[in-house]
Amino acid sequence: MRAGRTTDAPLIAAARGLVPRRTPVWFMRQAGRSLPEYRALREGTAMLDTCFDADLVAEITMQPVRRYGVDAAILFSDIVVPLRAVGVDVEIVAGVGPVVAEPIRTRKDLDALRALHESDVSPVLAAVAALTGPDGELGQTPLIGFAGAPFTLASYLVEGGPSRDHVHTKALMHSDPQLWFELCARLADIAGQFLRYQVLHGASAVQLFDSWAGALSRRDYERFVLPHSRVCLDQVRDLGVPMIHFGVGTGELLGSMATAGCDVVGVDFRVELTDAIARLGPDVAVQGNLDPALLFASRTAIEEAVGDILAAGRAAKGHIFNLGHGVLPETDPDALANVVELVHASPVTSVE
Amino acid sequence: MRAGRTTDAPLIAAARGLVPRRTPVWFMRQAGRSLPEYRALREGTAMLDTCFDADLVAEITMQPVRRYGVDAAILFSDIVVPLRAVGVDVEIVAGVGPVVAEPIRTRKDLDALRALHESDVSPVLAAVAALTGPDGELGQTPLIGFAGAPFTLASYLVEGGPSRDHVHTKALMHSDPQLWFELCARLADIAGQFLRYQVLHGASAVQLFDSWAGALSRRDYERFVLPHSRVCLDQVRDLGVPMIHFGVGTGELLGSMATAGCDVVGVDFRVELTDAIARLGPDVAVQGNLDPALLFASRTAIEEAVGDILAAGRAAKGHIFNLGHGVLPETDPDALANVVELVHASPVTSVE
Repeated sequence: MRAGRTTDAPLIAAARGLVPRRTPVWFMRQAGRSLPEYRALREGTAMLDTCFDADLVAEITMQPVRRYGVDAAILFSDIVVPLRAVGVDVEIVAGVGPVVAEPIRTRKDLDALRALHESDVSPVLAAVAALTGPDGELGQTPLIGFAGAPFTLASYLVEGGPSRDHVHTKALMHSDPQLWFELCARLADIAGQFLRYQVLHGASAVQLFDSWAGALSRRDYERFVLPHSRVCLDQVRDLGVPMIHFGVGTGELLGSMATAGCDVVGVDFRVELTDAIARLGPDVAVQGNLDPALLFASRTAIEEAVGDILAAGRAAKGHIFNLGHGVLPETDPDALANVVELVHASPVTSVE
Repeated sequence: MRAGRTTDAPLIAAARGLVPRRTPVWFMRQAGRSLPEYRALREGTAMLDTCFDADLVAEITMQPVRRYGVDAAILFSDIVVPLRAVGVDVEIVAGVGPVVAEPIRTRKDLDALRALHESDVSPVLAAVAALTGPDGELGQTPLIGFAGAPFTLASYLVEGGPSRDHVHTKALMHSDPQLWFELCARLADIAGQFLRYQVLHGASAVQLFDSWAGALSRRDYERFVLPHSRVCLDQVRDLGVPMIHFGVGTGELLGSMATAGCDVVGVDFRVELTDAIARLGPDVAVQGNLDPALLFASRTAIEEAVGDILAAGRAAKGHIFNLGHGVLPETDPDALANVVELVHASPVTSVE
C-alpha cells in the first residue's frame, strides 16, 4: 500500500473533504480511444488480452497522466476482467461490447462464478505495483482502482451482452429474488476482492462503476442492487482508501448511492451539480459532471460550462472535477488539456 | 373535430383533472411489433411506406384497441413522417432507425425544411378521419395525435441518424445558438402543424414525443429546447384538446416540461410517480409509468407494481396509466391485456 505517498494529493484531499491545494481533475476513459498513442499501442491486440498484459496496462494507464497532468490515473481495465479471470467465457466484440457465451439464468449457472483469487489477476496487479512502487512512474499521483458493480456485471451475465432494456435481468430480480440475491452476492465478492487486491498492490483510491444502475427505478435499486454494492465496498473499507461510487443516469438514485458506504459519488451530466449536492447530503464529496459532448463545442462554451461546474462544486464537501460520463472516442485531446488547465487555474475556494 | 363525442372518455377526463369513470390506460407503442396481427400486416412493406398508407395506418392504429380495450388509440406513425412529408430524404433502416441522407449542419441546409402543408400528409389525415368519423371504428374512444418534438427531430437531422451522445447536436446548440434556434423554429412549425392537422381531422388529444430530451441537462433543456416545444404546442392550443408531453430519462426536466403549456406530462419508469407528481406541481396531470421490462416478470410482480403506480397516481391532478416507455417488441400481448384488466378493476379514488 502506498497511501502514505499520495496522502497530500489533491484527489485524496478532496475525497476526504479536506481543502486540496488545487481542484483535482481526471476523466473517465481518459486512457483510451481518444488518444493516438493509445490507438497505436493497442493495434492488433484484443481488448481483454490488453487488460491481462502487465506492460500494456501500465503504459496505457500512464498515457493520459503524461499528456494532461491529470490528478489521478485510473487503472486501464474493463468491467468484465474479473469475470474472465474466474473463467467466464466472455469476449469483447468490436462495436458490440462484452458478449457472454453462456448467459446465467438458473441456479445451476451460478457454478460458473467461483471466488476470485489473487493469482487470477496477477498481470493486472503487477501493473498496479509497477506504476505505484518506489520507482513507479506515477510518483505522487494516485492510482484509482477499478471494478464494475454487481448489478452491471449481473446484467451482462444475465442478458449475455449489452442491453438497452435489461429485460431478462429485471425479470429475474422480480420473479426469483432469491436467485438474484445469490448471483449478486457472488459478484459483490468477486468485484470487492478485485478492488481489494488493487489497493493492496498500490492503488490509492477505488471507483465502483455501476454503469447500468440508471436503468432502474429507485425502489428497485434500493431493494435489488444497493445492498450488494454496499457489500462490495465493505471488502475494501478497512484499507482506508477513498471509495468513489458512479453510475450513469442516476439522478433519482444519488441519495441512495451515497448510503453505500462510499466517500465520493460520481454524478452524470444530466443532473445540475447543485441539485446533486443537495441530494447527496453533507457526508460525501462529489465527482463530475461536464457533459462529454460539450468537448465538441466552442472554447467559449466549454469555458462557461467548466466555470459553472467549478462554482457549483464549491458547495460540496469536496469536489473532484470530471466528465459526467466517459471521454467519447472522437474527442480532441487538446479539448481535454484545455479543461485541465481551466480547472487547475481556478481558485479552490470561493473568492467572495 | 370530434371532441364532443369523446368528452366523457376517461382519458379526456383524467387529462383535464376531472374524475374519470375508470382510470384510463393505453400503452406507448401499443400498435407495433409485439402484436402478431401487426407483424402479419406489415410484412413486406417498409415502415415509412406504411405510415403514408391510409388503410394500413387506420388498421394498425385500431389493432390494440380491439385486442386490449385500451382507453385511447394513438395514431400509428413515426417521428420522421412530417420530415419525409416536406421532402427530407430519410429512410428507416431496420435495426438502425431513421437515417438522413444529408445531415443539417449549416444555415444553407435549412432550405431542406419548408413548411408542412395539409396535402403533404393527406393519407395520414385520411386515416385519422376514417377512424374518428361518424362511421369510424373508434366510436367514443379518443384518438391521440402524434408528433416528435423539435429537439428530437433536430437530433436526427443534425446527427444524420440515431445517436447515443448527440455530439453534433449539442456542439451546434452551444457553438452556434442562432442557427440552432432557426432550425428548431422550423421544426416547431412543422411538428405543430402536423399535430394541428391531426386534431382538425378528428384526433381528440395530442402527444408530443421528445424521445431524446433526457440526454440534456436541465440548463440546456430550458435554454435550447423548451421554448421550441412550447411554440410547437402553441399551434394546437386554440383547438382545446388535451396535450400530453413526454420524454425518456426526464427526471431532472419534469418541472420544466410542465411549463411547456401541456395538460399532461408523461413520466418514464426511472422516476417514482410520487416524486414526479411533486415536481410537476398541481396544474398538470401525469401519465405513466410502469417499467416495460416488468411485463416479462411474474404475474405477482406485475400486479404489485401496477398497484403501487395506481396508488401513487391518485395524488395527481389526473392519472393516465401507461408504461414509462414504449412496449418492447418481445412483450407477450397477454401481459398487456392483464395490465388493462388490473387498471380497469381498480377504484378510481382512494378507498380510505
